[in-house]
Amino acid sequence: MKGINMIQLAKELGLSVSTVSKALGDSYEISASTKKRVMELAKQYNYKPNPFASSLRKKKSKQIAVIIPDIVNNFFALAVDGIESVTMNKNYDTFIYLTHESLEREKAVLEHLESGLTSGLIISVCTGKEGYGHFQQFYENTKLPIVFFDRVPDLLQFPKVISNNYESTFEATTRLIKAGVKRPVFLATEEPLYTSIERRRGFQAALISQQITFSDDMIVECSDDMDKNYSIIRKLLSSKKRPDGFFASIEKYAITTYQVCKELKINIPRDLKIIGMTNLRTAALLNPSLSTLAQPAFEMGREAASLLIKMIEKKSYAAANDIIVLNNELTIRESI
Amino acid sequence: MKGINMIQLAKELGLSVSTVSKALGDSYEISASTKKRVMELAKQYNYKPNPFASSLRKKKSKQIAVIIPDIVNNFFALAVDGIESVTMNKNYDTFIYLTHESLEREKAVLEHLESGLTSGLIISVCTGKEGYGHFQQFYENTKLPIVFFDRVPDLLQFPKVISNNYESTFEATTRLIKAGVKRPVFLATEEPLYTSIERRRGFQAALISQQITFSDDMIVECSDDMDKNYSIIRKLLSSKKRPDGFFASIEKYAITTYQVCKELKINIPRDLKIIGMTNLRTAALLNPSLSTLAQPAFEMGREAASLLIKMIEKKSYAAANDIIVLNNELTIRESI
Repeated sequence: MKGINMIQLAKELGLSVSTVSKALGDSYEISASTKKRVMELAKQYNYKPNPFASSLRKKKSKQIAVIIPDIVNNFFALAVDGIESVTMNKNYDTFIYLTHESLEREKAVLEHLESGLTSGLIISVCTGKEGYGHFQQFYENTKLPIVFFDRVPDLLQFPKVISNNYESTFEATTRLIKAGVKRPVFLATEEPLYTSIERRRGFQAALISQQITFSDDMIVECSDDMDKNYSIIRKLLSSKKRPDGFFASIEKYAITTYQVCKELKINIPRDLKIIGMTNLRTAALLNPSLSTLAQPAFEMGREAASLLIKMIEKKSYAAANDIIVLNNELTIRESI
Repeated sequence: MKGINMIQLAKELGLSVSTVSKALGDSYEISASTKKRVMELAKQYNYKPNPFASSLRKKKSKQIAVIIPDIVNNFFALAVDGIESVTMNKNYDTFIYLTHESLEREKAVLEHLESGLTSGLIISVCTGKEGYGHFQQFYENTKLPIVFFDRVPDLLQFPKVISNNYESTFEATTRLIKAGVKRPVFLATEEPLYTSIERRRGFQAALISQQITFSDDMIVECSDDMDKNYSIIRKLLSSKKRPDGFFASIEKYAITTYQVCKELKINIPRDLKIIGMTNLRTAALLNPSLSTLAQPAFEMGREAASLLIKMIEKKSYAAANDIIVLNNELTIRESI
């Protein structure tokens, strides 16, 4: 007779497979009487658990949730790769939620996760005006560990993994100006995220140190909408007193700039010098090759996941005020 | 007095939050006696469920798993975006597992998912020699619906979402030859996936139709390892009788080719013409701009998720032999 499997056991017992699995794994979620029923039938049928799956289960599989704005962006794709490199080894399952810069969606995901689906959260926030009360509320309701990375809210009690945005933007902007830029523009996100505030500060500080007077029109807010974004950059580069240097704080702003320059026949770097914050693998192959400020995306994901799992497994771990700061990397190529 | 939340209810009852949540949602997984205990205490404390979370829960949240080789690849990132656009609206949670072309990892994920963590699977297989017995075994053990996309196994009983690889590779190769290529090479994956077999077939058929004699060295197997891959392409382009045309069947093969050509000062398109299968957003901005055969990645993800959810929700839905075929899009730019 062929051995019985877990599905058949569950059927005969009138239980869900998940309950049978948990009962066989001696889970605290299952009552003693149910466990007894399951074990007895398993013994009667000489049920042999799949050794591989069983070894995975023994390590207690847990779930974490990753909430990010976008996946079609090399930064976030690499960060998820880094997160997964840790969760895979630690036998955690990874949920992924994309907010697409919608605060409503971000809130809905959090409310949904209040049901106890996961053991912890890794979050990069969306651009929103309304502050971060929903994260605090979520934490008060669930006490689940949360690690923020990259786009972090300015809330003291949560651990964060960030990169040195202020210093590295200062450095990049300085390089732009030293390359001859007189009217630099910072292409910014619509809403002032903490990360972008740090970058803006770095930009402004570099202007001061290089004796360039800052004016408000040197910060131009772009859009998440590709078409709107395109119009903004095209208008900017068609204006009479057009800027001669860009610091593009988001990957897609740099790509759109290249598209617009190609169309308007604006020569990079002669007419416009540009440094883009991006992890684009093709940066060196663009025409001309793009100077980049790259965040250590994979490492940031890896650090965030390691920290979160530490918090989940050692419940006493006092990580609330941990801030891990990694370094961005500036690579100068033909675009400046 | 402040209202009680689900966490506090769970604590007082000595149950997990998940059990309380399911009991309040009248889940079939929870026994009648537990439900009664939960409901009574909830009533006693005048427990008010969070209206948003509750409306989400009422739609019955379910989990699906997405198993893909890689996320740092525009095709898969876009496909996940497409999958999520459906699961988000249908209130499914999405697990993500990356196999990194490891068959061992793919098998381990499947074994792990046998525990009943999800309601269905969306899979793009890794390159492996050993066939697809593990998928059949998984299906026999669990009867869970599975939809394969893009890299699909040649197993009749599973529904698939693919693109017209044979026809579109035929078309692309024909364009290469008509542009003057005499010694075309197909840069292939190491292991013959069904998708790449279709592409190879399209490549060979185009040679025949253009009266070019096919020889085995016109198919060059690349590696998933970036460094090995680099050596293979560099060696190929340094050889005396070097090819004058590439069909790069994977995004990274095209990128590496550009890198090698830049180093060896091989002029694209004069010395080497190339078409790459990729969804790279920067293809038009490369130096020279890259001709691409792009798969409808977002749409493929969306179709796969829609089909899977149909299978989960209408259990009788006879989708086993469904094959959805979408069209790839050829865009000719400066590289040929």
